[in-house]
Amino acid sequence: MVKATTLPRNETGITTALGILKQRFGDRFQTGKSIREQHGHTTTWIENQPPDAVVFPHSTAEVSEIIKICAVHKVPVIPFGVGTSLEGQVNAPAGGVSVDMGQMGQILAVHSDDLDCVVQPGVTREQLNTHLRDQGLFFPIDPGANASIGGMTATRASGTNAVRYGTMKDNVIALEVVMPNGEIIRTAQRARKSSAGYDLTRLMVGSEGTLGLITEITLRLQGTPEAMSSACCSFPSVDAACQAVMATIQYGIPVARIELLDTASVKAVNAYAKLGLAETPLLMLEFHGTTAGAAEQADTFGEIAREFGGTGFEWTSNAEQRNRLWKARHEYYWATLQTRPGAAGIATDVCVPISRLADCVASANEMLKELDLVGLIVGHVGDGNFHTTLLVDLKDADETSRAEQFVSRLNDVAISMDGTCTGEHGIGQGKRPYLTKELGPATRYMAAIKTAFDPDNIMNPGKILSD
Amino acid sequence: MVKATTLPRNETGITTALGILKQRFGDRFQTGKSIREQHGHTTTWIENQPPDAVVFPHSTAEVSEIIKICAVHKVPVIPFGVGTSLEGQVNAPAGGVSVDMGQMGQILAVHSDDLDCVVQPGVTREQLNTHLRDQGLFFPIDPGANASIGGMTATRASGTNAVRYGTMKDNVIALEVVMPNGEIIRTAQRARKSSAGYDLTRLMVGSEGTLGLITEITLRLQGTPEAMSSACCSFPSVDAACQAVMATIQYGIPVARIELLDTASVKAVNAYAKLGLAETPLLMLEFHGTTAGAAEQADTFGEIAREFGGTGFEWTSNAEQRNRLWKARHEYYWATLQTRPGAAGIATDVCVPISRLADCVASANEMLKELDLVGLIVGHVGDGNFHTTLLVDLKDADETSRAEQFVSRLNDVAISMDGTCTGEHGIGQGKRPYLTKELGPATRYMAAIKTAFDPDNIMNPGKILSD
Repeated sequence: MVKATTLPRNETGITTALGILKQRFGDRFQTGKSIREQHGHTTTWIENQPPDAVVFPHSTAEVSEIIKICAVHKVPVIPFGVGTSLEGQVNAPAGGVSVDMGQMGQILAVHSDDLDCVVQPGVTREQLNTHLRDQGLFFPIDPGANASIGGMTATRASGTNAVRYGTMKDNVIALEVVMPNGEIIRTAQRARKSSAGYDLTRLMVGSEGTLGLITEITLRLQGTPEAMSSACCSFPSVDAACQAVMATIQYGIPVARIELLDTASVKAVNAYAKLGLAETPLLMLEFHGTTAGAAEQADTFGEIAREFGGTGFEWTSNAEQRNRLWKARHEYYWATLQTRPGAAGIATDVCVPISRLADCVASANEMLKELDLVGLIVGHVGDGNFHTTLLVDLKDADETSRAEQFVSRLNDVAISMDGTCTGEHGIGQGKRPYLTKELGPATRYMAAIKTAFDPDNIMNPGKILSD
Repeated sequence: MVKATTLPRNETGITTALGILKQRFGDRFQTGKSIREQHGHTTTWIENQPPDAVVFPHSTAEVSEIIKICAVHKVPVIPFGVGTSLEGQVNAPAGGVSVDMGQMGQILAVHSDDLDCVVQPGVTREQLNTHLRDQGLFFPIDPGANASIGGMTATRASGTNAVRYGTMKDNVIALEVVMPNGEIIRTAQRARKSSAGYDLTRLMVGSEGTLGLITEITLRLQGTPEAMSSACCSFPSVDAACQAVMATIQYGIPVARIELLDTASVKAVNAYAKLGLAETPLLMLEFHGTTAGAAEQADTFGEIAREFGGTGFEWTSNAEQRNRLWKARHEYYWATLQTRPGAAGIATDVCVPISRLADCVASANEMLKELDLVGLIVGHVGDGNFHTTLLVDLKDADETSRAEQFVSRLNDVAISMDGTCTGEHGIGQGKRPYLTKELGPATRYMAAIKTAFDPDNIMNPGKILSD
């Protein structure tokens, strides 16, 4: 485990606020050790920093009450969705109250004519898509986990579909937010576009609970395409695969998904899901459109792939075969873990201009060798975003330190290529030094916004901004 | 002319700063009356409020110098692109210095592999597209005027392609901005997506020069589609046309453009461009894709249109015929002006959820009758955004007052329908009261950001936020 920074605790304030919350929320206020630890960080190598209490509101008004109580007593408020964030976002380095949105999980409205819906933050992406299926609609953003929409909004998440459908920033129309003083605001109306003042919606998307707590989300939806076809194609090298991706994007093929697996990843997926894929770098793709359109896209991609040495190109519109392929991709994380039982999986998240992707992946591979680490690479390559999953024995201090070096050096390489240390996981606790490296003076203006909105720094302290 | 609010002037500061700027910039510093008036507002009914001087920087460093001088002496700085904004954005209600970006008009880089480019703010959208044409790339955002990219960014502009390609918020990757203290920041790296901290890029897009002056813009580009086809179809009523639009969007047809002209607009366009269109509500569309795909989209739309009473449906992929149609659309403003020579054209800009569009247009038409005004309606209906162009004799005080009533009532109707007072023109001076009506408490957080970044309120004062 990597030590996380601890911040000074306001013991008096915490004691007082906990007393008031306990009286007000009864059974929906919990302080048991195990429930608190479940609400601290668990999915990464960052140590668990549990909150002092967990409260389960049922409404925006209750969230406002909680925040008002915490504001008066200057007690940290840490929003919690389902806890699948990867950079320590739900940890409580100064203690405080975790606000678990799990009981605010209602789909409040689906406006099928307008292709939008309004949901509470505890709704998960799978729950939403199950609800939408009968209406011929879907919500495209799909991070690996079955994350909550609130959490996805707060971390500006994306996933495999971002190349076509964008990230959360592109798919949130409006938000209801409880601000650090307990005031409830709406950031925008439900119209599809607006030039009305500063874009508070986009400011809140990706703010990781540090500027306010999101209590309602209006999302864009997509009509389910008439046809979907999936394809995969093997390449002689990661570079050749990246070249094919660039040509595909430039050609204007509106690929819905285009994912790269390196050789080690293909081996892991083969072993886990028994797919029998050729064990060389692989692109997995999906095309959405009309029946003729999706077929044409697949065929055109096939031609491009062959130009770059692609072999074994196959595509299918058969739903069962498609699902088998994408299930394997979504189970990738578990497949990688099985390649080194007992090791922890630690995912990097750099994103670079596509033209630099092959170079950046090559650098990652060199560093893995140099630092004698086991790492598998998978990428949302249409966006230039890739994850190295390091498989680390966290009991081995030297290996853990080498893994930390890897993360640090890869982030530096990506930043030097005009890229970012995080394409979709967010800054949290773990990436704060890299944010400063990446954006330098701009981070002072982020801090100025934080201070203007939350002068007592009660909203998820110790995240995004360096102390 | 409608009176614009005047703000207190800092005479001493202005005199001192002008002296310093004159010495520093020589011929690139101008104070002649006509040049100053050209830099105040001219394209709307809002009165002209000229700045005290106009300066023409050549570089970001010079912009920083100008802003530092103005910051020390607390003198307003008003960014100026080509002056096509519609809500008083370039007026100088407290005097000060207009910073004309016309001599910062270089295309700094085109990264065709990454489908992005880096431009200075004075580059116009037509200049950019002319430059890109040979590379098989284009930049899709097309407001009516040949606006500058800097101005389009600052007002969060869009145009006819937004239904497919989004607005400026979706197409700006990163910005270089000179902040109100003269500091130069970059809001993001060039990677396609990022979760690195607060989204300062989106905060600056649409901030109308009130938070800083944009000096460099990294834009997403699109590959020129293999095929484009255009179509038009007449409908028995605006409502029928709107129903067809909703069905088209829901069906998932990725229309690139879908524009509505009401009967009066069709008559104006017929008279101006001699098109011979049936004089009933008309939809004009464009489809982008592969040859087969674009044809299939057009055919599918044709079927949908017929279900809603559409007649005279025609489509073409012939470039000359397509250009003739879209040229007519882009010249729409001039066509409307010709229907009442001598009158001023005043465009409203409401945007509502698509399901409310037909109702909102109907309300606009009723109000035109009630208030005895001449107005033509054209809409980016895929987004729910439409413009009523009022043709007003500004010398007639009573008519002008009725036009003001119309604007006010239409904004209220749109807001009551969960819509916005501005889909793409921005708030400027003209719409400040409606911003407060629309977003209420959220505007206080906009003001908090403004104060945090620009405590002396030197950046484009009197715009967006109410005093």
